[in-house]
Amino acid sequence: MAEYFRKIVDSKTFQYFIIGVILAAGVIVGLETYSGLMDTHGDLLHLLDHIVLYIFVVEILLKIGAKGSKPWEFFNDGWNVFDFIIVAVCFLPIGGAYIAVLRLARILRVFRLVSALPKLQILVGALLKSIPSMSYVGILLFLLFYIYAVIGTFMFGQNDPIHFGSLQVSMMTLFKTITLEGWIDFMNIQVYGSNLYGYENFPDTVRVPSAHPFAAPIYFVSFILLGTMIMLNLFIGVIISGMEETNKEEEIKELARIREELKNITVEEEINLIAEDLNKINENLKLLKNRINTTHRA
Amino acid sequence: MAEYFRKIVDSKTFQYFIIGVILAAGVIVGLETYSGLMDTHGDLLHLLDHIVLYIFVVEILLKIGAKGSKPWEFFNDGWNVFDFIIVAVCFLPIGGAYIAVLRLARILRVFRLVSALPKLQILVGALLKSIPSMSYVGILLFLLFYIYAVIGTFMFGQNDPIHFGSLQVSMMTLFKTITLEGWIDFMNIQVYGSNLYGYENFPDTVRVPSAHPFAAPIYFVSFILLGTMIMLNLFIGVIISGMEETNKEEEIKELARIREELKNITVEEEINLIAEDLNKINENLKLLKNRINTTHRA
Amino acid sequence: MAEYFRKIVDSKTFQYFIIGVILAAGVIVGLETYSGLMDTHGDLLHLLDHIVLYIFVVEILLKIGAKGSKPWEFFNDGWNVFDFIIVAVCFLPIGGAYIAVLRLARILRVFRLVSALPKLQILVGALLKSIPSMSYVGILLFLLFYIYAVIGTFMFGQNDPIHFGSLQVSMMTLFKTITLEGWIDFMNIQVYGSNLYGYENFPDTVRVPSAHPFAAPIYFVSFILLGTMIMLNLFIGVIISGMEETNKEEEIKELARIREELKNITVEEEINLIAEDLNKINENLKLLKNRINTTHRA
Amino acid sequence: MAEYFRKIVDSKTFQYFIIGVILAAGVIVGLETYSGLMDTHGDLLHLLDHIVLYIFVVEILLKIGAKGSKPWEFFNDGWNVFDFIIVAVCFLPIGGAYIAVLRLARILRVFRLVSALPKLQILVGALLKSIPSMSYVGILLFLLFYIYAVIGTFMFGQNDPIHFGSLQVSMMTLFKTITLEGWIDFMNIQVYGSNLYGYENFPDTVRVPSAHPFAAPIYFVSFILLGTMIMLNLFIGVIISGMEETNKEEEIKELARIREELKNITVEEEINLIAEDLNKINENLKLLKNRINTTHRA
Repeated sequence: MAEYFRKIVDSKTFQYFIIGVILAAGVIVGLETYSGLMDTHGDLLHLLDHIVLYIFVVEILLKIGAKGSKPWEFFNDGWNVFDFIIVAVCFLPIGGAYIAVLRLARILRVFRLVSALPKLQILVGALLKSIPSMSYVGILLFLLFYIYAVIGTFMFGQNDPIHFGSLQVSMMTLFKTITLEGWIDFMNIQVYGSNLYGYENFPDTVRVPSAHPFAAPIYFVSFILLGTMIMLNLFIGVIISGMEETNKEEEIKELARIREELKNITVEEEINLIAEDLNKINENLKLLKNRINTTHRA
Repeated sequence: MAEYFRKIVDSKTFQYFIIGVILAAGVIVGLETYSGLMDTHGDLLHLLDHIVLYIFVVEILLKIGAKGSKPWEFFNDGWNVFDFIIVAVCFLPIGGAYIAVLRLARILRVFRLVSALPKLQILVGALLKSIPSMSYVGILLFLLFYIYAVIGTFMFGQNDPIHFGSLQVSMMTLFKTITLEGWIDFMNIQVYGSNLYGYENFPDTVRVPSAHPFAAPIYFVSFILLGTMIMLNLFIGVIISGMEETNKEEEIKELARIREELKNITVEEEINLIAEDLNKINENLKLLKNRINTTHRA
Repeated sequence: MAEYFRKIVDSKTFQYFIIGVILAAGVIVGLETYSGLMDTHGDLLHLLDHIVLYIFVVEILLKIGAKGSKPWEFFNDGWNVFDFIIVAVCFLPIGGAYIAVLRLARILRVFRLVSALPKLQILVGALLKSIPSMSYVGILLFLLFYIYAVIGTFMFGQNDPIHFGSLQVSMMTLFKTITLEGWIDFMNIQVYGSNLYGYENFPDTVRVPSAHPFAAPIYFVSFILLGTMIMLNLFIGVIISGMEETNKEEEIKELARIREELKNITVEEEINLIAEDLNKINENLKLLKNRINTTHRA
Repeated sequence: MAEYFRKIVDSKTFQYFIIGVILAAGVIVGLETYSGLMDTHGDLLHLLDHIVLYIFVVEILLKIGAKGSKPWEFFNDGWNVFDFIIVAVCFLPIGGAYIAVLRLARILRVFRLVSALPKLQILVGALLKSIPSMSYVGILLFLLFYIYAVIGTFMFGQNDPIHFGSLQVSMMTLFKTITLEGWIDFMNIQVYGSNLYGYENFPDTVRVPSAHPFAAPIYFVSFILLGTMIMLNLFIGVIISGMEETNKEEEIKELARIREELKNITVEEEINLIAEDLNKINENLKLLKNRINTTHRA
């Protein structure tokens, strides 16, 4: 029985069918955004939505069934857990205010495409793996944001409460600044004072206008330079680690290829052995050279 | 006859002449954009345009003729097909509403420069080849856009129909957001509600104002971070594959050089060479042993 | 006694405790930005602030004590000096106008996280080390900024005193231009003249309107192209030097491994090893010769 | 005599003096931008300016003198020509309208710092050398700009003459678009038509309003994607060629170092010879392997 389920689950036809259903689920959820269409064909869309849901339920049951006497093994794969949650949420007896969670689950179904396409799975896996290598640069970036946000709130908070009124608002303003969008306005409010610049649309906001013609440019320019420099470092780190990863993978492939070749060829095997020996000698010679250098100078 | 045509087509003079004609075609189509000039010298420009067209016809006929008894081989090269279409469109009996197609064909003539300059041909070929390696990251990016567009349309559509009114409009807004241009405004409309921000110029647009002071920043910041991260990955992938390409090319060159050398030596000769080398090393080793013994004791 | 202090200072518990205190100091300084909270719990926050300060004092004393009879060695490490200054400033008899310095010192305490986490210390060290390698590109970039600022002040200063009124203002405008934020406005003020564009909000600013429809686009486009090109160069330089650094580190590791192996073998043994290898190769070669002869004739 | 001049010119003191004078020239030209300062100390600044000029004249004369009987050799170095022109322009009998050229020459004196600092000279040389390798991507980028500019002028010119009125104006708009600054406004004018969007400040500009709700987004999005892709390619090309350059340089250095070492060491020389022989054997073995493969399959 488990064998039979496994055959179905592993068949190309089944996999393409599931990919098709996921794409259909994506189209359905997209069509549901058009309120005009919902008014006329809402029932049909809801029906299709339910069909998709039950196909997914059947898929999960089949996959669990394929594990035979160890159904819990299904949950060993993180992607299966993801698939399960996406489907399970739709059966929770939630409603009213939590309808949004249900809708989100229905939208995230589209993301099941990642678990259905192995190449995308690898890609997303690589993205997730690169997160830890970014973590320390991330901490440094957070420190920079935090320190500048505290300074900004103290210095600029009373002049411009909309952008520096509290710590979280300052953090948001610094994020906007690092995307280089609108940062000139944030600075000018401080350079000219909020009575002269930037509060034309919010004249009633309570504030104590003051100008920082020197401190503000230093604050913003230094933040942009430091932030960009750390980001650059992050960027370089990711590139280098990405390349090392690729190199390692290729070395492993190379090794596997060599081993494969060794199995079948006998003449070349011998020549390879000679070449290996030669390399060993080469290394020994290098060792010898070092040793002579050290004993010479000692 | 085919031989004669091939000589003409392959001659440097002919190629430079065609490049010159393409550049002239570019200048003509550029001059045609100036309506003042078109009023005074429109006839001359149209005449020149026709001359250019007939030179291109002659060029294609020559190239087909150069193939001798197999004229269809001309169409084996994608660039030739491109050249043919650009010219053929101008002879189609289209007019009226389709005049734009004709004009486009005339403008795209400038792009024939790519097919005429081999180095540009290689460059564009490389660009086209890099598209498949980008495809999976492209799918991932599209998934991100689609999911965020659906969420955005549901959540923000009624508050800001101009930027989130329908799925395609939300996609466009997200594209604008990823270019980091104007994204602060899109977010502020959601943070403050469209009754307080951003609809001063479009007060009559039908909408249900509502504020999302927490959801909107999370939506936009997470989209920018995820989008940038995936783009960074795409970028790194392209760099690495570009470098591997270069390395492979160099390896191939190296191999070709070695094969060239290989042609003139017999197997026995090679083994003899190795044996000779080994003898030389043996002798050198003996010399070395003596030398170390003397320097050690000195 | 010094031994005892060293044990404490080097213990994991002590280090985690200090990291915890630094994080607490960061949270405290963050909470102090909320004026409402300061009104109700200001005294508590000040008390916690003092406790943190005295913990840091004890930490420094312990670390100095751990050096035994050579307490000045504590200051050999730049990070210790940084920690010391951050703490010492809080005991200086400053006040009034200099209260800001004190506050800054309290904020910078958060940055002590870098000196407490070795990995962050390495990261920041790498960032600081990369500065000299950027210095010449930095000089070139400054030259570009300076020359364009002088030209801009002479040419555009009277038409647009807000953006080109003096050398420092022009430098700031060029910095904004290189972040590609708002540069179109700076250019349009010159293209159309400040009487037609950009001075709607500052109509009373004294200026001599004039239009530079040709010079302004050349000025800005050339600055953006040159600036981006130099920045690109800087970027590439940092990537390449980063990769070389990584390669060097790996080479050093490899060398260390080889040296480790070297310690236990004598010179004679090595030469014998090489001789053995050579004999092995010789034998293999003979085998190979036989094998080729047979396969050749087969 | 020439020998004496060469000694002066090559002395560190002289070179530092000239660098100092260049920096002074930079400060002077910077101070001249402050009109208030010019009113009070204009004469002093002009005097200093003349002193700097004559020091430069003496420097050039010394450098020419150092060439002895072949003074024309001075002009073999491009940087000397640059220095000469910068100084020579100031003695041309130009005035009135051409005063700007003179002023530019005085500002460009600051750029003499590049010719005075050898490291900056190398850096700028590298930048100049990287231009040809960018040339074909540059041509491709220009083609893209030209084709889109012609299309844009035809399609959007009448609706928005300010941004697409003529070929050169369209080119400028596309440059702005590729810097991702303000491109949303350019697109919106086409999407909504210039009667509804963007011409509030220029209501009297003659135009034929029309909306392109589909064509405009396709035009701008495709241009941004294609432009970014080509730029990315340019970027990668520069990085790769930069790294190859660096690798080549290091290989050359490595070779030079090896040759230098070979001169003085005799024991190692022999070991190196052995190593070289081993490498030769290794290569021969590879050749042999290839040959066996080919003869095996033939």
